[in-house]
Amino acid sequence: MGDPAGVGPEIALRLLADEATRTLCVPIVFGDAAVLNRVAQHCRLPRPELVIPRADWQSAWREVEHPAVLDLAVIDAAGVRPGVVDAVTGEASFQYIETAITAALSGEVDAVTTGPIHKEALNAAGVPYPGHTEIFADRTRTDRYCMMLTCQELTCSFVTTHVGYGEVPRLLGVERIVEVIELTHDALVRLHGRSPRLLVCGLNPHAGEHGLFGEREEERIIAPAVEIARARGVLIEGPVPPDTAFLAERRRATDGVICMYHDQGHIPLKALAFDVAVNVTLGLPIVRTSVDHGTACDIAWQGEAKVTSLAEAVKLAAGLAATRTASHVNTALAGP
Amino acid sequence: MGDPAGVGPEIALRLLADEATRTLCVPIVFGDAAVLNRVAQHCRLPRPELVIPRADWQSAWREVEHPAVLDLAVIDAAGVRPGVVDAVTGEASFQYIETAITAALSGEVDAVTTGPIHKEALNAAGVPYPGHTEIFADRTRTDRYCMMLTCQELTCSFVTTHVGYGEVPRLLGVERIVEVIELTHDALVRLHGRSPRLLVCGLNPHAGEHGLFGEREEERIIAPAVEIARARGVLIEGPVPPDTAFLAERRRATDGVICMYHDQGHIPLKALAFDVAVNVTLGLPIVRTSVDHGTACDIAWQGEAKVTSLAEAVKLAAGLAATRTASHVNTALAGP
Repeated sequence: MGDPAGVGPEIALRLLADEATRTLCVPIVFGDAAVLNRVAQHCRLPRPELVIPRADWQSAWREVEHPAVLDLAVIDAAGVRPGVVDAVTGEASFQYIETAITAALSGEVDAVTTGPIHKEALNAAGVPYPGHTEIFADRTRTDRYCMMLTCQELTCSFVTTHVGYGEVPRLLGVERIVEVIELTHDALVRLHGRSPRLLVCGLNPHAGEHGLFGEREEERIIAPAVEIARARGVLIEGPVPPDTAFLAERRRATDGVICMYHDQGHIPLKALAFDVAVNVTLGLPIVRTSVDHGTACDIAWQGEAKVTSLAEAVKLAAGLAATRTASHVNTALAGP
Repeated sequence: MGDPAGVGPEIALRLLADEATRTLCVPIVFGDAAVLNRVAQHCRLPRPELVIPRADWQSAWREVEHPAVLDLAVIDAAGVRPGVVDAVTGEASFQYIETAITAALSGEVDAVTTGPIHKEALNAAGVPYPGHTEIFADRTRTDRYCMMLTCQELTCSFVTTHVGYGEVPRLLGVERIVEVIELTHDALVRLHGRSPRLLVCGLNPHAGEHGLFGEREEERIIAPAVEIARARGVLIEGPVPPDTAFLAERRRATDGVICMYHDQGHIPLKALAFDVAVNVTLGLPIVRTSVDHGTACDIAWQGEAKVTSLAEAVKLAAGLAATRTASHVNTALAGP
């Protein structure tokens, strides 16, 4: 449900009523029914039809066939002020996430899609994680993971994400880049049912122009990683000059771009904004996708929030869950 | 004319024959007539109609009314191998540039547009410059300059350009950023005839998110530069998260984006590629624009090169030359 004070509850309500989503999966909102009811009234949306009390979940989860709310009842709904995130709403959003992770790990749900949470609210609640991804990695004991953003026309995976510009070079390593390549390859095999064509960006302008710019990161770190992945059967090109990786003709010939840093991939994704990009955490033992927007406190509880991003994220989660087999990366990478 | 062995001669021939260019200016190709004639034959293009020998230039330049070639006769045309750049072709391209700069400084031409040269050929010829821009800065004794890339829908100026990724943070300074803002403001006042709306990118993801990522470059360096420029009357916003600077709605509300590093602006420019971007060096005492492509040796002398980029660059040069008055930045910046 995301942070109760943000747009999370509204888009959760819209998702429960979304016809397209029903054809793909049975959506179950982990949150507070009382908050959802209050928001439904505010936004003139239908109230949830099916609410499962927390105490009933263990007996009920196998039988849920219609869009439902799992009522975790962790917050006093009357005390939530729309658009005002604080320690209490942050703590509630964290409990929804923790419960969802547990449910996914035990197979009660097939995938988790996260609504928007607020970093400052999490901090205020004393939750020691910078964001969703770190919570999922930690709670599922995953060391080897990465962020992927995907939409119809462009998919980017990230070797580094939320770190300072200046920290990136020392975070690049052959092993880490191979890891991101393999995680991306594996996910795209599952999504497309065939070996994807990957492209790896350099770090420096012009990919360093043979050592003219930078510290030869392309020759020392990126090219060796590409060689290792290629030897394992991955269809991969690069390192290419970063500003040529996103040319229209290159995009058409590429299924996924491996980016060295946050803005290398976020700038073209947002500039192009073909459609809504979905955020996926690769490498987890469970499927996890996320909306690509924040709590949007300025329009919270006003009936103006769009469900598009959440619905796309749920669609991708359902797609990944459907193809989730014993797809260990070595299996997926089996070459000719 | 650019490097004789690249696509430069072919696009120069096409420019001389371009009707739209004739309505804007009198194009004069500084190069080798013998090379142009050989390329004309190769590509089945018309030979230049008007060739001015070097010796006649001083008496002729005031009278040139039609597209012409200034024949500098520096290279043995028969010895040039299409697509093979070397010390001899590098040296020739350097002489064309030097002569053009001298002609511009003395007012014999109103602007210079450079064709594609080859860095390795320049190096082979012992020319101690990494590229065009540095030659122009040095020969015109300019300390205060920057690169701007501009097309119909997006214009970016760069605080740093051809340096390694890791060198960027220590090259950012308040004074340098103010300089780039003012140079951009001044150029866009000349182009648009009004105060432009500028946007400044942060350096870190999310512009550092209040110090969460990075070394507070936004607070320490970029924001103070924005304040100084604003106090001088520049309409300017930022620092903004780099990945939001190029959103479609933001682009429509912005005349120019100040980028901290090469790929921050080159990635969206090339990904979007609305039309041909023109490279301009701001801050020089002369007008200088450039094609935005290289020597394209793989298609040199084959009749396949397009004049679009060169024609756009000439068009912008003509536009800047027409508005070139005593537009010292302080004049241009005069507030209400």
